[in-house]
Amino acid sequence: MPVASEKSAVVLLSGGLDSATVLAIARDEGWAVHALSFRYGQRHAFELSAAAELARRAGAVEHLICGLSLDLFGGSALTDPALAVPHGRSDSEMSAGVPITYVPARNTIFLAHALALAEVRGASAIFIGVNAIDYSGYPDCRPEYIAAFESMARLATRAGVEGGTLRIHAPLQHMSKADIIRRGLELGVDYGATHSCYDPDPTGAACGACDACQLRLRGFADVGRVDPARYVER
Amino acid sequence: MPVASEKSAVVLLSGGLDSATVLAIARDEGWAVHALSFRYGQRHAFELSAAAELARRAGAVEHLICGLSLDLFGGSALTDPALAVPHGRSDSEMSAGVPITYVPARNTIFLAHALALAEVRGASAIFIGVNAIDYSGYPDCRPEYIAAFESMARLATRAGVEGGTLRIHAPLQHMSKADIIRRGLELGVDYGATHSCYDPDPTGAACGACDACQLRLRGFADVGRVDPARYVER
Repeated sequence: MPVASEKSAVVLLSGGLDSATVLAIARDEGWAVHALSFRYGQRHAFELSAAAELARRAGAVEHLICGLSLDLFGGSALTDPALAVPHGRSDSEMSAGVPITYVPARNTIFLAHALALAEVRGASAIFIGVNAIDYSGYPDCRPEYIAAFESMARLATRAGVEGGTLRIHAPLQHMSKADIIRRGLELGVDYGATHSCYDPDPTGAACGACDACQLRLRGFADVGRVDPARYVER
Repeated sequence: MPVASEKSAVVLLSGGLDSATVLAIARDEGWAVHALSFRYGQRHAFELSAAAELARRAGAVEHLICGLSLDLFGGSALTDPALAVPHGRSDSEMSAGVPITYVPARNTIFLAHALALAEVRGASAIFIGVNAIDYSGYPDCRPEYIAAFESMARLATRAGVEGGTLRIHAPLQHMSKADIIRRGLELGVDYGATHSCYDPDPTGAACGACDACQLRLRGFADVGRVDPARYVER
């Protein structure tokens, strides 16, 4: 088991654009990183190989992939094959309510596991890539939710009993997709190695039309760069 | 998928004495129960067959067993074969600090999954069997922790965004083991069908000497009853 650093953090790493940027920010701030990803029955499991490669390149202390059974509960187009991932939604559609790609309580479940890993490794921080765009639609991306999780987490663990501290870092919280990409490029993130698409083809090529692809492509357009990810030919 | 009742609740059901009593309390209060158990690499997986039988007898709407990978993190005698379950500890040993049988962030992970199930099924309550004895040693059994989880949970879900409510019920919170057993017997709980031991023999017989067995046996002694569970011959 890796030895806990003086300043070690758990980074939730999906393999997408946001978490890749968070990983780079955590490393830039000098944290020893324990990267944590989940196999949860998601359609887009390609993101896990992206996560492994990103963790390796960033010099993470370790990268764990934890199995979850979120498909047991259903209720999301990301885990239920019977629900279609929406494509080509307009801005007003994307900003109206909680999307069908929302996975019930997913961030709570992810953060709970990060808390377990933080406790076992003696890490004092958890990094998560929620951001301003996500929390227009996903309840568990809102700043007040993240703050409430932090308060709960401080009471939840051995460290909480023994006077330790734990902080949840959400460095992208108030950033647009374009801001995130700009910061990541400054830090040398290779976005060609990230995977964001909710509905990739069998080779892992991104669809270009789901919410995640649309937001990502628009972010690159806003900074005047070409997205280096691989998209299906159309 | 079962239809959500007007008054439906998720009950965390380990198959032990406490959660069996909580299940009976929830049914007595008129809740339609979605029982949820976890297979998390625990030594005492016998509790899962106890949970299934208890859910069936109590007329639960459904009983889900969700796989978790808590053994990935280690750090507990309940999930790590290299750590021994303590036997024959004295009262002062049991009340001194967080025990080695504590599983890091376990209740947070369990409650997070209960939250996902509650959201998908439209349940407005989650029942958990934490109690006064547990929270002398386990940080995530303390009343202030449960209250903080509830605050966080209300912000975490679609229901939270749309004005729904969610309550965490911990009806055993201020009860001693003897109080719990008395209440369960009133409600007709068959404690012979429950499993509490952390370290059962290969046939599922309880050891009689781990913390869980000691607290349970003392509870029955305090109410003047014989524990109907099956113990190893000694």
